[in-house]
Amino acid sequence: MKIGELRGSLDWARAGDEMYALVAELYPICRSITGDGLRATLRRLGRDLDLECHEVPSGTAAFDWTVPKEWNIRDAWVKDARGERVIDFQRSNLHVVHYSTPVRCTVGLDELKRHLHSLPERPQWIPYRTSYYEEGWGFCVEHERLAGFGEGSYEVCIDARLEDGSLSYGECAIGGASDEEFLLSCHTCHPSLCNDNLSGVVLTAHLARLLAGLELRYSYRCLFIPGTIGAITWLSRNRQRAARIRHGLVVACVGDGGPFHYKRSRRGDADIDRAVEHVLRQSGAAHAVRDFSPYGYDERQYCSPGFDLPVGSLTRTPHGCFPEYHTSADDLGFVSARWLGESLCCYLHVIDVVESNRRYRNTNPHCEPQLGRRGLYRAIGGSASPGRTEMALLWVLNLSDGATDLLAIADRAQLDFDTVRHAADLLCSHGLLAETA
Amino acid sequence: MKIGELRGSLDWARAGDEMYALVAELYPICRSITGDGLRATLRRLGRDLDLECHEVPSGTAAFDWTVPKEWNIRDAWVKDARGERVIDFQRSNLHVVHYSTPVRCTVGLDELKRHLHSLPERPQWIPYRTSYYEEGWGFCVEHERLAGFGEGSYEVCIDARLEDGSLSYGECAIGGASDEEFLLSCHTCHPSLCNDNLSGVVLTAHLARLLAGLELRYSYRCLFIPGTIGAITWLSRNRQRAARIRHGLVVACVGDGGPFHYKRSRRGDADIDRAVEHVLRQSGAAHAVRDFSPYGYDERQYCSPGFDLPVGSLTRTPHGCFPEYHTSADDLGFVSARWLGESLCCYLHVIDVVESNRRYRNTNPHCEPQLGRRGLYRAIGGSASPGRTEMALLWVLNLSDGATDLLAIADRAQLDFDTVRHAADLLCSHGLLAETA
Amino acid sequence: MKIGELRGSLDWARAGDEMYALVAELYPICRSITGDGLRATLRRLGRDLDLECHEVPSGTAAFDWTVPKEWNIRDAWVKDARGERVIDFQRSNLHVVHYSTPVRCTVGLDELKRHLHSLPERPQWIPYRTSYYEEGWGFCVEHERLAGFGEGSYEVCIDARLEDGSLSYGECAIGGASDEEFLLSCHTCHPSLCNDNLSGVVLTAHLARLLAGLELRYSYRCLFIPGTIGAITWLSRNRQRAARIRHGLVVACVGDGGPFHYKRSRRGDADIDRAVEHVLRQSGAAHAVRDFSPYGYDERQYCSPGFDLPVGSLTRTPHGCFPEYHTSADDLGFVSARWLGESLCCYLHVIDVVESNRRYRNTNPHCEPQLGRRGLYRAIGGSASPGRTEMALLWVLNLSDGATDLLAIADRAQLDFDTVRHAADLLCSHGLLAETA
Repeated sequence: MKIGELRGSLDWARAGDEMYALVAELYPICRSITGDGLRATLRRLGRDLDLECHEVPSGTAAFDWTVPKEWNIRDAWVKDARGERVIDFQRSNLHVVHYSTPVRCTVGLDELKRHLHSLPERPQWIPYRTSYYEEGWGFCVEHERLAGFGEGSYEVCIDARLEDGSLSYGECAIGGASDEEFLLSCHTCHPSLCNDNLSGVVLTAHLARLLAGLELRYSYRCLFIPGTIGAITWLSRNRQRAARIRHGLVVACVGDGGPFHYKRSRRGDADIDRAVEHVLRQSGAAHAVRDFSPYGYDERQYCSPGFDLPVGSLTRTPHGCFPEYHTSADDLGFVSARWLGESLCCYLHVIDVVESNRRYRNTNPHCEPQLGRRGLYRAIGGSASPGRTEMALLWVLNLSDGATDLLAIADRAQLDFDTVRHAADLLCSHGLLAETA
Repeated sequence: MKIGELRGSLDWARAGDEMYALVAELYPICRSITGDGLRATLRRLGRDLDLECHEVPSGTAAFDWTVPKEWNIRDAWVKDARGERVIDFQRSNLHVVHYSTPVRCTVGLDELKRHLHSLPERPQWIPYRTSYYEEGWGFCVEHERLAGFGEGSYEVCIDARLEDGSLSYGECAIGGASDEEFLLSCHTCHPSLCNDNLSGVVLTAHLARLLAGLELRYSYRCLFIPGTIGAITWLSRNRQRAARIRHGLVVACVGDGGPFHYKRSRRGDADIDRAVEHVLRQSGAAHAVRDFSPYGYDERQYCSPGFDLPVGSLTRTPHGCFPEYHTSADDLGFVSARWLGESLCCYLHVIDVVESNRRYRNTNPHCEPQLGRRGLYRAIGGSASPGRTEMALLWVLNLSDGATDLLAIADRAQLDFDTVRHAADLLCSHGLLAETA
Repeated sequence: MKIGELRGSLDWARAGDEMYALVAELYPICRSITGDGLRATLRRLGRDLDLECHEVPSGTAAFDWTVPKEWNIRDAWVKDARGERVIDFQRSNLHVVHYSTPVRCTVGLDELKRHLHSLPERPQWIPYRTSYYEEGWGFCVEHERLAGFGEGSYEVCIDARLEDGSLSYGECAIGGASDEEFLLSCHTCHPSLCNDNLSGVVLTAHLARLLAGLELRYSYRCLFIPGTIGAITWLSRNRQRAARIRHGLVVACVGDGGPFHYKRSRRGDADIDRAVEHVLRQSGAAHAVRDFSPYGYDERQYCSPGFDLPVGSLTRTPHGCFPEYHTSADDLGFVSARWLGESLCCYLHVIDVVESNRRYRNTNPHCEPQLGRRGLYRAIGGSASPGRTEMALLWVLNLSDGATDLLAIADRAQLDFDTVRHAADLLCSHGLLAETA
């Protein structure tokens, strides 16, 4: 089956439900950039996917970086003088600053507050904070609860281990006709946060399952990696493979109800940029496209100047632009099966365009060929304008010089890609068009 | 005489009257893409022009096409049971579908209706329909009259011949100093329709008469050809000549009162595109410019990728964009002498720009030359800004590097071409500018 | 001291006061394109500057031009029949048409009026008029006073000499690390007119004094020259030196209260164009940028096609765009110390950007370097967006390919140049960036 047929036959509602169910299943796990939570997540994904899991030892060099120690946490709490847990990791894994060093001590209120993070402007939400590369400890708490913290001494416990271990990541490779690859990369390191980025994780996994059953032109590589250090580690171990990446997308924040948002690759006019922009424009729905910037997700690494890969990022509301971002409010109520299904649909559309985009040469370039005698043109002449199908035939014939691809033709003709591709197929079947390399 | 002088001395009102009179004379003739109506039209044009008429036999190959059989019609009608002509070719040659095969039969109302074309949204107008490349027969009728067609049998007659003959076209070549050619092409195949395209036919013929009396830089080729098959036939017989075309315009729909409308060549930035856009912009009048698209008139063939000639189309309201298009309402009341005169004026302006556009080299490129001592600059200094003439002198001097043409200078300076050309002439006469190849 | 430090420590108010005082001191002098007034002005400037004064004899050829005779004037007046001076050069040196030939005669009112210039639309102002290159004489007068000129005879005297002498100009060269030069050019030929161009003269002189004390990358050349003939003369005597000019600004009309206005060099995208546009855009204040045109000040000569130097013009309200232009209303009340100070500040900012603009190569181009362990990145992760400093670090790393300069990075990143330069300095000090040639 080709991807076009899949798109025509897929039960989107069911796909959305399945993705949402997996988000719900993975939600409670306490992931970080290393450790057992990340491993458990990869193990769960591996039940549905042919997922190769890698372990890279702490201390391994990766370009300018070093794989950090592994962090695992069993429990963490702050108890007041009466022994009551006023902050409790068991209630939310966001309560602890991730990568906190183990600690067990008794402190006064002032000292405690130096280790607390909260959001005054969102007093009911717990922020998500990390301290991967500087040792220390801390807790995150709802701001409204701080007022209840009276003077006195507090017992603090972070029952964590920060020691040599390994960094885990998962890789799912799906072979296609060509060695050239399409990269789908999602960061898999966030704890109980749904849109950022369980949504990206389950969408990538679902895409991988669907693509595995298809007849593909490109090979696909889906990476389930911890943000930043994961991408850097993968790139440092796969420099040759990275050179084969022809298209790529960083998958994140695809479960909320906002309009689609595309961040271009550093190149700005790569095929993936043109394909995503075409799909979004033709959708007729509100959407935004913005230029590359060196802040964001792992496109930062893929688009670093030494690689400069054609990798963009297709999200709904982008990181940092929804108030729930990196807070406990990015929960199961913030994402929905319907929105996940829409995002899957959009990703498959983009992949279909990239798979089908080709260059042709008009075999009959002097004047138009006589379409009428081949049944490709209406018989009765004189009415004011031809249909979309006839216009697509004329555009493809006029612009197919062996160098202009179907996507460029669709954009110049202001027609949707499917109409143009259908016209090219028709012309090919009549010998009026020949594919070029 | 040069074209600039002609433009200054022409009696525009009289030219408009003459063109309108010729439209009126040609209006009753039943033209099609072949046949005696087309021949009669060319014969009439030949009375005023040095027109070479060509006959290309049916069956001749022309790229992917074949010259069709010749179609001639003497009469056509539908009679009701009482023997009354309810549809009568003698009243309008639009009543019959052009290229209908001969027929003589009696049919019921249902069968008749399968052969009728009408315009429900314009019930008083007869549509114009053709069936050049699929054999069959049909009639066109005012929609409001269909209700009066009662049950019963109808006698149908199309007294036409569709048989081997030839395709006719006319060609008028006007020699200039260079072998390089300016193509003016009009489709001459439509029956009693005034704007589309008797307006284009008479404008092209009038231009040819005027150009024949002038001292010209380019050679001009005016083609009076049936649409599509005529252009394809001409191109297939003139491949070498086509390679000499440096500029070209497809002349159509130039008799109505709408604003000018220019459709760019496929290249989009050919000299003819720049010239027409300059003239329209400088006119100050409302106008529209749109990019090439592969639907329209014979620019479709001239701009096919194997030729890619610099040919645009300058019309007033373009084809398909006025409701009278291809209906009996495109009649003698829809066009006027005044509008034809305005269109002639616009075409001559464009041709004048193309004829006069040249590249120069400033012979004194270090600092400005002293214009004052040559009488080219006001003597008293100090007032706020120079006049248009002085600005044009400064711009031409500053930008004449041997590669930038006067049209580019006029566009960058936001001055009209005539002012810039006049400045260049003045500077040449003082030895401050030298023409480059 | 570097220019950045100077900008941080300069007493702007005092600089403005000093410039205004010098305008006031130079205001009464009757300058022209040659003569003792111009010489006196250069002498005064030479008290503060290391100014080399040049004298070029009348009759010297300069490209297409010839250095004119020298003009000096002692007195000029028109007396009515009662012997009363109705026009008197002693009251304003604008009253005489500059370069008037000596005359002493008695004329009737009609003959007198043929030699008078006035401004009907500004009846209380005296216009400034010249007749450098056509011999003749004339007076300029307030239009409202013309009505009082009765019939009768008038005695006319212009006690001037127009004879062989020389053209004077001043040149101040300030050496920098490189032989490549930054040109600052002001016309110094206007009589009692403050904004045009005593403002430009004192600003250039003040810049020269400040630059002379700095550690500079480029060498600077400040020209104090008569308009047009001065620039042409300098260029004709310095063709080799002109080829070393990498950046340049024509300094004029910098004392009024209007918004800044930049006229691009003929090239349109020279470094100086990008630098000025960046500074004006980042200022947040209203400003205007317009393309080069061949009318204006001496950029006309610097940008003539044989030189095509990267020289723009940075003014406040440009020439001809304020009603006081070239009239007696361009007086000491029309300019102010504050506005002169603001203009100085803007010029120094532009020069600072040009001096500091460099190209770098990211020495660690594969993935981001780990900024955190170098103390260049906040320790606690998770908040929504990085600060401007961190963004600047990421942008500089991402775009420093050895060819893209800091100004281009600042423009693409929409950050101000200083932030980007600071980031580049930080990265250099950590060995993460290396300057390229």
